[in-house]
Amino acid sequence: MAAVRVIVQQAGLDGFLVPRADEHLSEYVPPCAERLPWLTGFTGSAGLAIVLHDRAAVFTDGRYTLQLASQTDPALFERCHITDQPPPDWLKAVLPGGRIGYDPWLISADGLKRFTDAGLAMVAVDGNPVDAAWIDRPPAPAAPAVPHPLHLAGVPSAEKRSAVAAALRDKGEDAAAITDPASLAWLLNLRGGDVDYAPFTLGFVLMHADGTAALFMDPAKLDAAAQEWLGPDIVLHPPGALAGALAALSGRKVRVDPAGSAAWFGQTLRAAGATVVDGPDPCALPKACKNPVEQAGARAAHARDAVAVCRFLHWLESASGTTEMAAADRLVRFRADADEFRGESFPAISGAGEHGAIIHYRATPATDRPLQANEAYLIDSGGQYPDGTTDVTRTVWTGPGTPPTELRDRFTRVLQGHIAVAAALFPVGVAGPHLDSLARRPLWQAGLDYDHGTGHGVGSYLSVHEGPASLSRAAKPVPLAAGMILSDEPGFYLPGAYGIRLENLLLVQPAPDLPGARKPFLAFETLTLAPFDRRLIDVPMLTRPERAWLDAYHARVLAKVGPALDAPARDWLAAACRPLA
Amino acid sequence: MAAVRVIVQQAGLDGFLVPRADEHLSEYVPPCAERLPWLTGFTGSAGLAIVLHDRAAVFTDGRYTLQLASQTDPALFERCHITDQPPPDWLKAVLPGGRIGYDPWLISADGLKRFTDAGLAMVAVDGNPVDAAWIDRPPAPAAPAVPHPLHLAGVPSAEKRSAVAAALRDKGEDAAAITDPASLAWLLNLRGGDVDYAPFTLGFVLMHADGTAALFMDPAKLDAAAQEWLGPDIVLHPPGALAGALAALSGRKVRVDPAGSAAWFGQTLRAAGATVVDGPDPCALPKACKNPVEQAGARAAHARDAVAVCRFLHWLESASGTTEMAAADRLVRFRADADEFRGESFPAISGAGEHGAIIHYRATPATDRPLQANEAYLIDSGGQYPDGTTDVTRTVWTGPGTPPTELRDRFTRVLQGHIAVAAALFPVGVAGPHLDSLARRPLWQAGLDYDHGTGHGVGSYLSVHEGPASLSRAAKPVPLAAGMILSDEPGFYLPGAYGIRLENLLLVQPAPDLPGARKPFLAFETLTLAPFDRRLIDVPMLTRPERAWLDAYHARVLAKVGPALDAPARDWLAAACRPLA
Repeated sequence: MAAVRVIVQQAGLDGFLVPRADEHLSEYVPPCAERLPWLTGFTGSAGLAIVLHDRAAVFTDGRYTLQLASQTDPALFERCHITDQPPPDWLKAVLPGGRIGYDPWLISADGLKRFTDAGLAMVAVDGNPVDAAWIDRPPAPAAPAVPHPLHLAGVPSAEKRSAVAAALRDKGEDAAAITDPASLAWLLNLRGGDVDYAPFTLGFVLMHADGTAALFMDPAKLDAAAQEWLGPDIVLHPPGALAGALAALSGRKVRVDPAGSAAWFGQTLRAAGATVVDGPDPCALPKACKNPVEQAGARAAHARDAVAVCRFLHWLESASGTTEMAAADRLVRFRADADEFRGESFPAISGAGEHGAIIHYRATPATDRPLQANEAYLIDSGGQYPDGTTDVTRTVWTGPGTPPTELRDRFTRVLQGHIAVAAALFPVGVAGPHLDSLARRPLWQAGLDYDHGTGHGVGSYLSVHEGPASLSRAAKPVPLAAGMILSDEPGFYLPGAYGIRLENLLLVQPAPDLPGARKPFLAFETLTLAPFDRRLIDVPMLTRPERAWLDAYHARVLAKVGPALDAPARDWLAAACRPLA
Repeated sequence: MAAVRVIVQQAGLDGFLVPRADEHLSEYVPPCAERLPWLTGFTGSAGLAIVLHDRAAVFTDGRYTLQLASQTDPALFERCHITDQPPPDWLKAVLPGGRIGYDPWLISADGLKRFTDAGLAMVAVDGNPVDAAWIDRPPAPAAPAVPHPLHLAGVPSAEKRSAVAAALRDKGEDAAAITDPASLAWLLNLRGGDVDYAPFTLGFVLMHADGTAALFMDPAKLDAAAQEWLGPDIVLHPPGALAGALAALSGRKVRVDPAGSAAWFGQTLRAAGATVVDGPDPCALPKACKNPVEQAGARAAHARDAVAVCRFLHWLESASGTTEMAAADRLVRFRADADEFRGESFPAISGAGEHGAIIHYRATPATDRPLQANEAYLIDSGGQYPDGTTDVTRTVWTGPGTPPTELRDRFTRVLQGHIAVAAALFPVGVAGPHLDSLARRPLWQAGLDYDHGTGHGVGSYLSVHEGPASLSRAAKPVPLAAGMILSDEPGFYLPGAYGIRLENLLLVQPAPDLPGARKPFLAFETLTLAPFDRRLIDVPMLTRPERAWLDAYHARVLAKVGPALDAPARDWLAAACRPLA
């Protein structure tokens, strides 16, 4: 802290921003970019510190309020709620018009605008003061970048680049800066291991309107085979060459995503005399629409994952005394029985009883506790496989008693909401936020709700959270399109008591033939295969179509997963999947 | 045409825009502003002409494509679809970079931006060339402006102005230009008769942040009582004083609605050295949230209107041989039996059989036809009353036979969608676009849909179409708030065969007490009272809650409307409202 303050003061600044972010503004941050925990002790996945001469504050959201309080020193840091007290407002009140330094690699143009709109004088700092003070800072990750072969990727990079280049030319743009590691991975059919949970290889791409691309990445990460895989139209440069390559775009129109890319890109291009066009990452939409090979891969990955999940649910029946952490570990080991398993797609949420009500709960040795008799247990987990990424949540009753009426009512409403989305037909043009209310309606009718989106996009052996489409009301309404994979995960949480969430991944498909339809309709194919706990279903609450959907789904789970199980697990699954009484 | 062209050429312009608009950019245009029909012959309610030296085009939307073709001379005008071929794109292709004149009183800043974004050199023209050429142009309307008394308005103008002024001060703004006649009427508690269908008195208001206002209106429209009603804090000026008053705001921050106000306001203010702040009309949201007196007025107006609608529906049972126009006239006369009736709130849509499938059908002597046996008849109409504005659509079966299965299926799905919205509970923060899919879902599940929004806001003795909230996906998601009145009008249209639309007005209310609710919920109170034709309902398709809603609604219709009917009509209504078998 003291060292950072000295550097900030020497630079003539009133303060400095330390966001939880890396140069890709990605959800997954390598250790060398973990500046916020280094400075403050706070390890939550979203946050920002502001260091002034004589005070400092750390901001995070409601998920991490308690964690922030326990991990940071109140003598050093004020602790603030990032939506109740947005950092620009806090600065405006504390230091109106102050000169605040920031690292242009760690904030987007849109993020920066919120500070300048608040009347603050924002000063880009060359060389992050935290890095200067951080003696034992880990090196940048350097895992090998590996080809994502065509039998998994489905479409060659040249074809993807040709389509993206055509989109740029349509807008009269000469190039685009690709800064999202998921877009790099999709565009170049490359994967890697630079961060946890997502098979990213970190780097930057300058995509040109002629279909060629420049890749800025440590050449040591690419062996001869990987360099061969890139082909002649992708020129590999060391990361240090990026600024020069941008400068060479003087006079050109270059697209930069103002929300997703570091402000450094637009600033560097403008300084070089390029015209910066605000626009979305041109890979985001084509990446979201999985091609037929990726769709087949998703089905295979989900069938494989389902075996692990069903074995786990069967194991859980007789796992008395297991704890939240032990259960999550057991699920990882079931997944690891498949050779194709490449690790979890996110840290599992394994919450018994009242812990299930903490939406982003992560069991730690300090909070871990045994699953008890007669309580709800929520397990939200996912796996990475070369052919697809999974994400599934089930809520089960530990028994042996009968669940309380209220819990069954809430579970059934969540299930009805889940089915309303999964079974929805809708015309082309409808976006996720328009379907969100279908999932909430059974809860709303009882005055209940859940404080998270209904679903997010999921990548193809990429990030488990992927844009641009979602089923969240708060998100931009991006029309759903065939090939998108989205989670459908309504929930209900009674703080201090229990949490319910029911999540399958859905694949958007053209609807089956509908007589009378005068425009194209879309439908969802459910990818995830695991039973819903029938002990928690209040069957008379279900409509006939809801029962029919559930019976058909369970029959499909049994048919697809049953043959891969041993006899005891298969018998258990058959009972779990029999038609509702 | 020739005269307009000469003026345009003399001004050194390549062309000129002639939109269907008045200086208020309102839906309701007085005869003196009907420049588009004067120039082109086209009388549709939405359109734009572009006059170049040697060619010209008229643009309108799908509702008016046929009418445009029949009313305009193909030798003079190309006829274009305004969304397939937007005017800026047409100009960009025909005359790239052309110097195009426009009347800054007849286009919004946002509308103008679409032309400048297309690379056109847009030139504001002082004095409209059409007006110069239009010898027998009607005078501006001059109906008296009359007080809207407190027992109808509910809140004094001073109190409304005080709240609006506080909202301006909150944003650091010194004044706002109020150009929407509905906002003027609401803010000053004034009504008038300058346009058809809405009790507007045309004028402009400069609302100051100290709560005072300047009203720019022909003083001849206000008698002594009306001027007294305005009170000392509203200073009346002739319309010609407006430019000077804006110029006096030099150095001040003035809010102008870039979508709803003529571009002239921002341009004039900027030229005078004022700072123009883009922002919504500050009256729009408070006007939409009806106060308790307006809510009581709405209930009274709807109860009165329901008597006319129910008498009409009873009359229709034995009105064999009546035509679409005659039926609509009969409905106006039923409404006119109430002393309080002030006229229709829009031209009724009275469509038998295949005419019902034309969403904005208006029967004319050329299209009028008798209602035939065994067909669907759609009637969408509304009334203006001093205490409220109504808008109701019913679709009935003319009999005497049984409706075809498909028609009953479609009607029942539309009814299910209507009920899904009317019976919805939802938390504060939810906006109309989020509820739209509830109304469509029963149709979507059969591959069907309707090509219009689900509902629009409705004024209190003001416009039948009122912002800012709506139930349309295309609209900005404005959170619903207690006191808003919205239409709920899903439909289904089979071109060439029949149309179905079922519309009630709904009043947003705090939800009744919901045990378990941890945040405030809202609900709808149905204002409109008229039976749905049970012959068209496929009862087994309804869920139990849908049947319960319909039976309760019909019981309420009978209880509220029955006592005001004569014996035959009352007996008919009792049969129409009995519980579903």
